[in-house]
Amino acid sequence: MRLSTYFLPTLKETPAEAQIASHRLMLRAGMVRQSASGIYTWLPLGLRVLKNIERIVREEQNAAGAQELLMPTIQSADLWRESGRYDAYGKEMLRITDRHEREMLYGPTNEELITQIFRDNVRSYREMPKILYQIQWKFRDEVRPRFGVMRGREFLMKDCYSFAMDYEGAKKAYEVMFNAYLKTFKRMGLTAIPMAADSGAIGGSLSHEFHILAETGESGVFYDVAYDELAAKDEIDLETLSKLYAVTDEKHDSSAANCPPAERLKEARGIEVGHIFYLGTKYSKAMNAVVPGPGGETVLAEMGCYGIGVSRLMGAIIEAYHDDRGIKWPEAVAPFKVGLINLKAGDATCDKTCEDIYRSLSENGVEVLYDDRDDRAGVKFADMDLIGLPWQLVAGPKGLAVGVVELKNRLSGEKVELSVEAALARLTA
Amino acid sequence: MRLSTYFLPTLKETPAEAQIASHRLMLRAGMVRQSASGIYTWLPLGLRVLKNIERIVREEQNAAGAQELLMPTIQSADLWRESGRYDAYGKEMLRITDRHEREMLYGPTNEELITQIFRDNVRSYREMPKILYQIQWKFRDEVRPRFGVMRGREFLMKDCYSFAMDYEGAKKAYEVMFNAYLKTFKRMGLTAIPMAADSGAIGGSLSHEFHILAETGESGVFYDVAYDELAAKDEIDLETLSKLYAVTDEKHDSSAANCPPAERLKEARGIEVGHIFYLGTKYSKAMNAVVPGPGGETVLAEMGCYGIGVSRLMGAIIEAYHDDRGIKWPEAVAPFKVGLINLKAGDATCDKTCEDIYRSLSENGVEVLYDDRDDRAGVKFADMDLIGLPWQLVAGPKGLAVGVVELKNRLSGEKVELSVEAALARLTA
Repeated sequence: MRLSTYFLPTLKETPAEAQIASHRLMLRAGMVRQSASGIYTWLPLGLRVLKNIERIVREEQNAAGAQELLMPTIQSADLWRESGRYDAYGKEMLRITDRHEREMLYGPTNEELITQIFRDNVRSYREMPKILYQIQWKFRDEVRPRFGVMRGREFLMKDCYSFAMDYEGAKKAYEVMFNAYLKTFKRMGLTAIPMAADSGAIGGSLSHEFHILAETGESGVFYDVAYDELAAKDEIDLETLSKLYAVTDEKHDSSAANCPPAERLKEARGIEVGHIFYLGTKYSKAMNAVVPGPGGETVLAEMGCYGIGVSRLMGAIIEAYHDDRGIKWPEAVAPFKVGLINLKAGDATCDKTCEDIYRSLSENGVEVLYDDRDDRAGVKFADMDLIGLPWQLVAGPKGLAVGVVELKNRLSGEKVELSVEAALARLTA
Repeated sequence: MRLSTYFLPTLKETPAEAQIASHRLMLRAGMVRQSASGIYTWLPLGLRVLKNIERIVREEQNAAGAQELLMPTIQSADLWRESGRYDAYGKEMLRITDRHEREMLYGPTNEELITQIFRDNVRSYREMPKILYQIQWKFRDEVRPRFGVMRGREFLMKDCYSFAMDYEGAKKAYEVMFNAYLKTFKRMGLTAIPMAADSGAIGGSLSHEFHILAETGESGVFYDVAYDELAAKDEIDLETLSKLYAVTDEKHDSSAANCPPAERLKEARGIEVGHIFYLGTKYSKAMNAVVPGPGGETVLAEMGCYGIGVSRLMGAIIEAYHDDRGIKWPEAVAPFKVGLINLKAGDATCDKTCEDIYRSLSENGVEVLYDDRDDRAGVKFADMDLIGLPWQLVAGPKGLAVGVVELKNRLSGEKVELSVEAALARLTA
C-alpha cells in the first residue's frame, strides 16, 4: 500500500477526550474515529489489526474443535423472557421496538439464542458434544462509555458455547477452551494471567477471567510467580492451576491459604480480555434444551460459555506495547510488517530503489506500507513511529550512494545499515 | 471436517414457510435458521459460503483500488437529520432510543456516516480521489420479510462510496466499480446483466442495477443478445454499454430507440444483486463535505455509491444453481470442494482408504467434508446431493475390492470410476 493514496488520517495533536494511551494512539494513528458516544468507525489501518486479532482468535477456536456460526445482532425479546433475563438485564440492554410493535433487542450476549439453536437442531446424544462460537458485534448501552474501544458500546466479541451430556463433558470443554485462550493470547505477544472469578450475572460456578499484563492496566492484580514459569508452557492442567494464587486487588487476601509468601507474590496491572464460565444447566433448564440419551432418557445439556473481547484486545495490546512516540505492534497483529520510507521522493535513485523493494517484498507476501509522499523526513519518521509497524526500512540519497539502507526494529529500537539485498533477505526470511 | 461431528442439521421435509427454492434449500441443507421474522442465524455450512462470497467481493473491491473500513451498525439520528433523510426514510428504518433518550438508528445504508468521515478527515485535493467500502450488517424493517435471506431484515451488504474532485473523477470511479462488479459476479459463476435504472430514494442521475440470470428470478428482464457476447469479456466500456438495451419488464418498451429487433431481444428472469449510483453533490452539499482545491478554493466532493447484497447473493446463486435434489455450488463459493462418502463406515478397508484420502486432500489444501457416519448409503447420497458440494468421491467395499472409487461431478452429474491415486490427482490439480 502506498501512503500517498492510503486513507490514513494521522493526528499530530493529542485529542483532548482521550484519557488513556491506547485511546490517544488509536485516534492519532488514524485507526478509529468516534461516530457517537462509545461507537466507533474502524478506519483502514485499525481494521487491518482488528482482522488480524480476529484471525488468530478464529484459528485457535477452530483448532480447539469449536465450530463457527454467526448469529444475528437483533434478537427477539421473547427469547430472553424464557430465561428470565429480559427483565433482569437492566439498562445496559439496548431495547428496540420494530414497526409491528414487537419487542426486540440488540444482543449484549447470546446464551438464549444459542440455546434455542441447540434445542431446535440437536436431536441425539450421538451428535454430542458440541462447541459452537461466533465473532460478532454486540451492544451494551454503558452508562458512561470511555477509554475508546476498551469500553465502547458497540464492540466485537468472540462468544463460544459448549454443550455436553454431563458435568465431565462440560469440564473437558472448559479445559480445552482454557488452554485455547492461553495459546490465543500468547500468539499475540501477550502474557495472560487466568484468575478465578466470581461468575457474575451470567451464572454458574466455575469461572476464570483472563487478564493481560500492561503497566497501564485498569486493575491491580496479585499472582504467584509460578505463573511466569507456566506462561512458557503451551498447556496448563487445571489441577495445577487451581492451586495457584491469582486475584484482582479487590479480592487480594494475603492470609488466603494459597497466597504465596511475599517473595513469590507479584503485583502488576492487568486488563481483562477474556472470561470463561461453566454454566451448568441454568439455560438448558430454563429453555428446555434436552437431548435424548442412549437409553432414551431426557438429558439437560451441560453448558459453558467463553468470551474474548476482540475489539477490546486491540486497546489492550497497545497498552502493553507503546512508548512516547507511538505504538509498537507485535508482528502477529501488525497492520503491515514493514514501513518503507523514501527519504527523498522525486529523487530518481531513491524512487527506483524503493519501487524495487516495494515490489520485491509484495511479491514475497510481505505486507508493506510504502511512504512515497513528497514530505519532510521528520514527518515520515514521526508517522512511522506513531503507527508502529514492526520494521522500518529507510532509503535515502546518502545511504544509497554507498549502497546501504537502514533497517530499524520498532520494538527494540535497534538500527542496522545493510545492503538492499541483505535487508530483503532478512524481511522475507 | 468429519460429518459425524459437524453441526449440519439437514432436513428431509420441505419447511412449509419457504416459498422459493433457495429458501427451502438453505433450510433443508442446514445453512440457516430463522430466529425472528426476516432475521437469520448462519449455521457453519451457510457461514462458509457467506465468507467465500464476501472474500470474492473484497478481493475485487481491493483490486479496483477501494479501501476497506468498517462503520458501526448503530448510528446517530442527528447525522441523518443533516441530510434530511431521518424524517424521509419511513418505517423501514429501525429507530432506537438509548438509555440517555438519544435517538439512534440501525443503519439501513451509510451515505451520511461515510460523508461525515470524509468531511472530518480528508483535508486536501492531494488526498483525492478516495474510494472507501465496508462489508457490514444492515437492517431494514421490511413490512413483510420473505424469501429467506433474499428479503430479510438483517442482511450483509457491501457498500462502497467514491469521492472525487469533479464529475470526470466521479465518472471514472463509476466505471471502475462497474467493471469490478462484472468481474465479481463472473468469478461466482454468475451472468450479470447491468441495467440502466431509476435512481430511487438514494438520489443521483446515473445508475445501474445488476441482475443475475436465474430461471426462478423475481423479475422479468429483456436484454439485447449482445450482452451474452459481452459477458465473455473482462472489461466493458460504458460507451458501448450505454447504447445497449436491458430493462426489467415493467420498463420494457419495444418501441424504444435502442430496443433491438425481436430476433436479438432476449427475455429472461433475473435477481437484483447490486446497484450503483452516481450521487453528485447531494450529500456533500447537505453535509458540507468540502475539500480545498489547488488554488485554495472550496470544492464539494462529487460522490458515488455502490452496493452488493452479499447475503442476498447466496440465495441468488442457489436460484441459479440447483435441481430437484439440492444445491449445485459453483466451485468458487462452495462450502467444501469435495464430499467424501464412506459407503461402509466400520469396514476396515473403507475406513483406511477414506482416512488416507481425507488426510491427503486436506494436506494439499483441498477442503473436504468427510461423511464418516454409520448410516445408510441412501441417506449419505441424499445429504451430499442436497448440500451440493462440487465433487463427490465415493468409496465402497465393492469398488475398493477392484481398486476403484467413484468420482461424481454434482453440476454435470458425470460419474467416473478411477483409482484412488487418479482421483486425488484430479482433485488436487
